[in-house]
Amino acid sequence: MSKPATDKPTFTLVQARERIDAIDRDIQGLIAERAQWAQQVGKAKGALKAAVDYYRPEREAQVLRRVVDRNDGPLSNEEMVRLFREIMSACLAQQEPLKIGFLGPQGTFSEQAARKHFGHSSHGLPLGSIEEVFQEVEAGNADFGVVPVENSGQGTIQVTLDMFLTSELKICGEVELRVHQYLLSRTGRMEDIERVYSHPQSLAQCKSWLRQHLPHAERVPVSSNAEAARRARNADDAAAIAGESAGLVYGLKPLAGPVEDRPDNTTRFLVLGRELFPPSGNDRTSVLVFVKDQPGALAHVLGPLAAHDVTMNRIESRPAHGRKWQYAFFIDISGHVEDEAVRAALKEMSPFAREVKILGSYPVAVP
Amino acid sequence: MSKPATDKPTFTLVQARERIDAIDRDIQGLIAERAQWAQQVGKAKGALKAAVDYYRPEREAQVLRRVVDRNDGPLSNEEMVRLFREIMSACLAQQEPLKIGFLGPQGTFSEQAARKHFGHSSHGLPLGSIEEVFQEVEAGNADFGVVPVENSGQGTIQVTLDMFLTSELKICGEVELRVHQYLLSRTGRMEDIERVYSHPQSLAQCKSWLRQHLPHAERVPVSSNAEAARRARNADDAAAIAGESAGLVYGLKPLAGPVEDRPDNTTRFLVLGRELFPPSGNDRTSVLVFVKDQPGALAHVLGPLAAHDVTMNRIESRPAHGRKWQYAFFIDISGHVEDEAVRAALKEMSPFAREVKILGSYPVAVP
Repeated sequence: MSKPATDKPTFTLVQARERIDAIDRDIQGLIAERAQWAQQVGKAKGALKAAVDYYRPEREAQVLRRVVDRNDGPLSNEEMVRLFREIMSACLAQQEPLKIGFLGPQGTFSEQAARKHFGHSSHGLPLGSIEEVFQEVEAGNADFGVVPVENSGQGTIQVTLDMFLTSELKICGEVELRVHQYLLSRTGRMEDIERVYSHPQSLAQCKSWLRQHLPHAERVPVSSNAEAARRARNADDAAAIAGESAGLVYGLKPLAGPVEDRPDNTTRFLVLGRELFPPSGNDRTSVLVFVKDQPGALAHVLGPLAAHDVTMNRIESRPAHGRKWQYAFFIDISGHVEDEAVRAALKEMSPFAREVKILGSYPVAVP
Repeated sequence: MSKPATDKPTFTLVQARERIDAIDRDIQGLIAERAQWAQQVGKAKGALKAAVDYYRPEREAQVLRRVVDRNDGPLSNEEMVRLFREIMSACLAQQEPLKIGFLGPQGTFSEQAARKHFGHSSHGLPLGSIEEVFQEVEAGNADFGVVPVENSGQGTIQVTLDMFLTSELKICGEVELRVHQYLLSRTGRMEDIERVYSHPQSLAQCKSWLRQHLPHAERVPVSSNAEAARRARNADDAAAIAGESAGLVYGLKPLAGPVEDRPDNTTRFLVLGRELFPPSGNDRTSVLVFVKDQPGALAHVLGPLAAHDVTMNRIESRPAHGRKWQYAFFIDISGHVEDEAVRAALKEMSPFAREVKILGSYPVAVP
């Protein structure tokens, strides 16, 4: 198959477009064939009606990891993964589409996360609160739910963790969503800017960009990005670094963005379901461990993890509501509950804890 | 290439998945090749930097029409077109992505229309008003804008039409977006429902669905779908037919949806740009004709259209602000201003009008 030269135009516009048309024909034929095979997968499992019966998060994660592995441009991994998520979403929606509950209204980061994970052929249900997302999945009105659990800027979303204290839902996926920063001002002209307001964390996140594009502007740290936008509204020579929506609320114009130096301003979401899924080969397990408030309790609980070489990615303690003098620890570890080491470690942990509750084993987020 | 049987499973799950993996490899290779050729198209035109220099609406419309023509399932035309829009969007975004202004905040139907037309690799700018969308495109802060112009339920959005009285922007596309209806209730149980509130138009739109699923429930027409949701909130035996977001606002649960009988509940949006584009082969032209308020003026103006066999799709009159005793007619006709018949008809129209302003010639919306 002939490929275009990458340095100079060796083909005419008409030739290039004819080639693209031929490629499109082939892509379309393959997508149609893929859709037929996807139906076949369902049939091999028995007579199934709804997409929820076909959906296998571990299989999707494997497909997307292969996409990343063999990608050698020119599209970025993120773009290529996005296209394959949409192709899988369309193939799956040949049955009654997946119903995905998320924290509404439409347009929230939760909706973006739900769309990123399940594609645009799924059916979104905007709900009024994180509690309601849990309830609707428990009641079966939603097949899955998507809730935020931590933000690289603001930390853990406690209400989500606390829901797991009583809910029997399982975590069956995680989604990471980049949250972008914008430079906003009243006049919309770069040359007017003499001061830039933002939260110190946001200023730090955009340091290189500011040095390059606004070397002489003063950086003014304020309490929040919303406060920065509010201040920038009152002066022609000021700008704010804030989320895009702040510009809308305060009537500021976006001058540039995203302006963060590194793509690490991320919110992590959990996908809630009613069952556990098999391993994908690169998984994470979340457990909730209730311990008595006594010296050494936590050390006893964590010991087996180290002994079995299980990596702990995260730990966070919360008072266990309704269980006086007990604490709950939310622990994320690498691996799947079906892995030998994880199973053994959790088993050895049990005698030292009041309860070890498996919240879920799920594929590590694919970009 | 062997295809799966459609009636019974003749392949194992493992075989089907292996086949899908092979198909995915081929699709990915073709998408990468397509992306390289898309760059080549840009090079054939000279050294271009931003996606706006590459974007050709007439070419995209042609590609999508071919996709519809050769589609023979199992995916619907709408799903297949959506996938190709996303593939084109990703290829285009290899350059600085398109900036698309729309009526915000995020999550509005305007954003959905912008995403439907430009795909998810474009960069969305949520703006505060329809006027602001025009301003930001005029100022070059947005490459294109997307504004609603008519709704099959509520009719014309006057503010959009009126902006064209003074703006020099061109219409370079149209988007049609289906707006879906949902059955919402407080209890979330179908068996509780004895009354269904909704606007008469919505009740009519969902007649067959209601007859089939709620044959014994009373239909109660009210002034708006929001009013319907408000009433359904106060009774366990009532439901509302309304948009999904009404459920969120009034704390109702979605029982079923979309429940409209025909996919004709549509909002039409216009894509605003700064230049006219060449014909796509199936185009529409919007003109704004200022006439003196005198007998027969309109008939004189419309005569040439009939004489040249140019189909008029739509006409709407508005008082021409600041031009006393004049009227403005917004007229949509089939064809492109570069078509012989359209050109001739518009030319013959001129002597009878104060002014004939070409608002744009653009591809007819692809589903």
